[in-house]
Amino acid sequence: MRKIEDNQLILLIWRGRKYLKRVTLDQSFHGKGGMLRYSDLIGKPYGIRIGDYDIFEPTIEDIVMYGLKRETQIVFPKESFFIAFRLGLKNGSHVLEVGTGSGANTYILSHAVGPQGRVVSFEQEERHFRNAKRNMERYCEWGNVELQHEEFTGCDGEEFDAAFIDVREPSMVLGKVRECLKGSAPIGMIVPTANQISDVLKTLEEGYGDTEVLEILIRKYKTVAERVRPTDRMIAHTGYLIFTRKLDILELETTQSHPVIADL
Amino acid sequence: MRKIEDNQLILLIWRGRKYLKRVTLDQSFHGKGGMLRYSDLIGKPYGIRIGDYDIFEPTIEDIVMYGLKRETQIVFPKESFFIAFRLGLKNGSHVLEVGTGSGANTYILSHAVGPQGRVVSFEQEERHFRNAKRNMERYCEWGNVELQHEEFTGCDGEEFDAAFIDVREPSMVLGKVRECLKGSAPIGMIVPTANQISDVLKTLEEGYGDTEVLEILIRKYKTVAERVRPTDRMIAHTGYLIFTRKLDILELETTQSHPVIADL
Amino acid sequence: MRKIEDNQLILLIWRGRKYLKRVTLDQSFHGKGGMLRYSDLIGKPYGIRIGDYDIFEPTIEDIVMYGLKRETQIVFPKESFFIAFRLGLKNGSHVLEVGTGSGANTYILSHAVGPQGRVVSFEQEERHFRNAKRNMERYCEWGNVELQHEEFTGCDGEEFDAAFIDVREPSMVLGKVRECLKGSAPIGMIVPTANQISDVLKTLEEGYGDTEVLEILIRKYKTVAERVRPTDRMIAHTGYLIFTRKLDILELETTQSHPVIADL
Amino acid sequence: MRKIEDNQLILLIWRGRKYLKRVTLDQSFHGKGGMLRYSDLIGKPYGIRIGDYDIFEPTIEDIVMYGLKRETQIVFPKESFFIAFRLGLKNGSHVLEVGTGSGANTYILSHAVGPQGRVVSFEQEERHFRNAKRNMERYCEWGNVELQHEEFTGCDGEEFDAAFIDVREPSMVLGKVRECLKGSAPIGMIVPTANQISDVLKTLEEGYGDTEVLEILIRKYKTVAERVRPTDRMIAHTGYLIFTRKLDILELETTQSHPVIADL
Repeated sequence: MRKIEDNQLILLIWRGRKYLKRVTLDQSFHGKGGMLRYSDLIGKPYGIRIGDYDIFEPTIEDIVMYGLKRETQIVFPKESFFIAFRLGLKNGSHVLEVGTGSGANTYILSHAVGPQGRVVSFEQEERHFRNAKRNMERYCEWGNVELQHEEFTGCDGEEFDAAFIDVREPSMVLGKVRECLKGSAPIGMIVPTANQISDVLKTLEEGYGDTEVLEILIRKYKTVAERVRPTDRMIAHTGYLIFTRKLDILELETTQSHPVIADL
Repeated sequence: MRKIEDNQLILLIWRGRKYLKRVTLDQSFHGKGGMLRYSDLIGKPYGIRIGDYDIFEPTIEDIVMYGLKRETQIVFPKESFFIAFRLGLKNGSHVLEVGTGSGANTYILSHAVGPQGRVVSFEQEERHFRNAKRNMERYCEWGNVELQHEEFTGCDGEEFDAAFIDVREPSMVLGKVRECLKGSAPIGMIVPTANQISDVLKTLEEGYGDTEVLEILIRKYKTVAERVRPTDRMIAHTGYLIFTRKLDILELETTQSHPVIADL
Repeated sequence: MRKIEDNQLILLIWRGRKYLKRVTLDQSFHGKGGMLRYSDLIGKPYGIRIGDYDIFEPTIEDIVMYGLKRETQIVFPKESFFIAFRLGLKNGSHVLEVGTGSGANTYILSHAVGPQGRVVSFEQEERHFRNAKRNMERYCEWGNVELQHEEFTGCDGEEFDAAFIDVREPSMVLGKVRECLKGSAPIGMIVPTANQISDVLKTLEEGYGDTEVLEILIRKYKTVAERVRPTDRMIAHTGYLIFTRKLDILELETTQSHPVIADL
Repeated sequence: MRKIEDNQLILLIWRGRKYLKRVTLDQSFHGKGGMLRYSDLIGKPYGIRIGDYDIFEPTIEDIVMYGLKRETQIVFPKESFFIAFRLGLKNGSHVLEVGTGSGANTYILSHAVGPQGRVVSFEQEERHFRNAKRNMERYCEWGNVELQHEEFTGCDGEEFDAAFIDVREPSMVLGKVRECLKGSAPIGMIVPTANQISDVLKTLEEGYGDTEVLEILIRKYKTVAERVRPTDRMIAHTGYLIFTRKLDILELETTQSHPVIADL
């Protein structure tokens, strides 16, 4: 049974409101549910209710939602979870990100590729770069993220397994991202408007395949057994996701003894 | 640049139709786009178009969707991706699954916990167990999945970081699953009907916290730049997801010199 | 060209905020866009912008949304519009409503059946009845609505073309509503929870046919040509709609010379 | 109690499949549920089950869905119902439609304005015009629809209360439609793609107000009391609806003794 220790993170919930806090021996949480001395938590297991407070061990999602400091519109976990797997990421993958923003998606990518993987993320804006850097330093478990404070112009020959793009005009960087990728590598993008979908699709006409555009909607329900019903309001739009894969056209060799493609 | 080798998997796409195939020197793919000799692919990079065929390196999702043999309604990747992260899984996590089914979700969990992690999955039905076992043998990269062919009745003292339940009546096994978990451990469930949401919520009234019920809807778009619009039809329902966490009520010690919770 | 006259209704919009007002010679509208003397509007056409104010002739929906005084959760126009047509209402129809509430749906039904039609609506709660009565007196164009301040127990032999039920437990009144209807008459219901869907469906097992359960979702878009995208948030739930039709099982007459249904 | 008579329409349902038929004395319905002689129905009430067949009196929606012959993609009732009310139509309204198509929306508009109303609808394509004409002759109850077989170029001074546009490029006819309308008159449009939303919004920048873009999604549920759940698949897209109203900017008269808009 893992116990709460000094300097560890906790997720504290009071009547549905969630707070991510770092336990420190001599401090307390002051909320509407009363004062809670962190020293009283140390040595206790995670997953406990004390008065009106519920104390959990934070998940990756908790850290993104309640820990990371945001200076930009972030890619939300519901999209990041999908992106990470859709990009085929797994233990040891190398992934390129253009547009770190606040680092929320970077943080998820870091978990998806694990301690043997590698995330290289570019951010041009100094303020965002600094914020993302601090977020990674505070919360990232593995040293697998490399943040670059510069405009993305290429990768010096490094070949990545996949890429994710979150910049205003993805079509402006797509070609250079493509050059950094292995053949077949999946590329993901997020854009807020339908006009941008149209722009990106035009760029994808050559050199890419298996393109897909989609959006993810999460509909939440109230948790009363006798009154099962959706919540009154929901988030209607965070962004459109575009996925594609690097594709090269292989010229058929004419000298071969048999045709590569024979009619059936 | 990774090349296609004998005995490797490829994803072959012909006009949007996808096939997961294992390349073997002396065989061919026979489809409406013509015959393709696998021997012609060997030594070529992934991510190539040959005639009407696009050849990619399969992602985790491709393997689930076009590789795994299904004998049951599977948990779809859109849900599995969300579940894996929502359960807080990361490199090294130990996760319990009750209801292996065809192993689609098991396969995603396996990737989420990585080679240092562990997935223990229970399946009562022999036919499903055998099918899932073969699916894991064929496609699982790491030896981190342990399939149990028996009714789930408990875990012999093993403590898991998280659990996922996909059985007809989750409320019947919830209590025993809870006993196998560390404090604070997230539990996920999938149920097809609103009546089941109601049943599960009743069971969650004590011993659990941070309960959430939701569903995930994916809306796909056509990929024509000049005519951006959703597809005509979509999948409207796969299942309701229920998430909760193990929670114990900590009795306040009355002898302590200061109250744990002091009014503000 | 219809002109604005004294004592008429106008819809006034200021930066997206909508107000339904009755023009009176000696009064003014005081808003953040400045003061607007109603006397300056009289004699002007509808559909004009004066300063920051847009003045339109109100539609039925404007009156429901910005005119009717609400003392209850109303049936929203998006549902009422659908209900009115789904119930097959047209000029001259007679429709029964159980549960007037604030009269929002009643008002739409009144328009659907036209001046030659008839709406009879029951409301038990005195406060709601009074509010609905005032709403109808203020806004209803035709004297085709009859509000009953009493518990619904039956119809004294009157036969309606259709019925709508908006009460806590529709299954409690369904049988009596059915007795007031012509054969084949459509019945609509709105319920907020999935548990209630289940309850109603049980009641519908005998004496009803062509049952359908559905919900209506409206997704709005921002109106910027260069940035077409959904609004950030949307209404996720107002209610589930249940539609059915009165059905009697006709006993086959055995003495007839030919069978009513012959096998093919 | 209304009885089924010779030459009347019936809706016949067999295991969820719906057929709109006209009863004729000497004919029969031949289906998988057996043969049904129409002569056996005459004199019976609507709303009866005979064998496996349920016989109902058709609603407006039944006629649109199962009666009207389609030669085009139709505006579906879920949208038409919304459009009719959103355009503020009521008994006696005059409404202009550009693009009759198969007449499905025309038919709903006809019901919305009632016998004292008027629908004028333009269709350029001869084949569609003829089909719509036949549909109206067969099913329209009131002689309130005037179909024009010509390109829409204007209205000869007639002033309409509202308009609906369903043509490939609504922005090409918007200006002329506007000239046919009373001040404040609502205009509705349906377009399949987001690119067209963008085009229309550009046209609406001057001379229009209260613009709104939205889409309507209907999610249906299975009707089993013990297993309340959405259907597996749903219609994901029929079209985007755009609504606006005719608006003129009123020049402020400078000679007036008081300003029309005074600062607060």
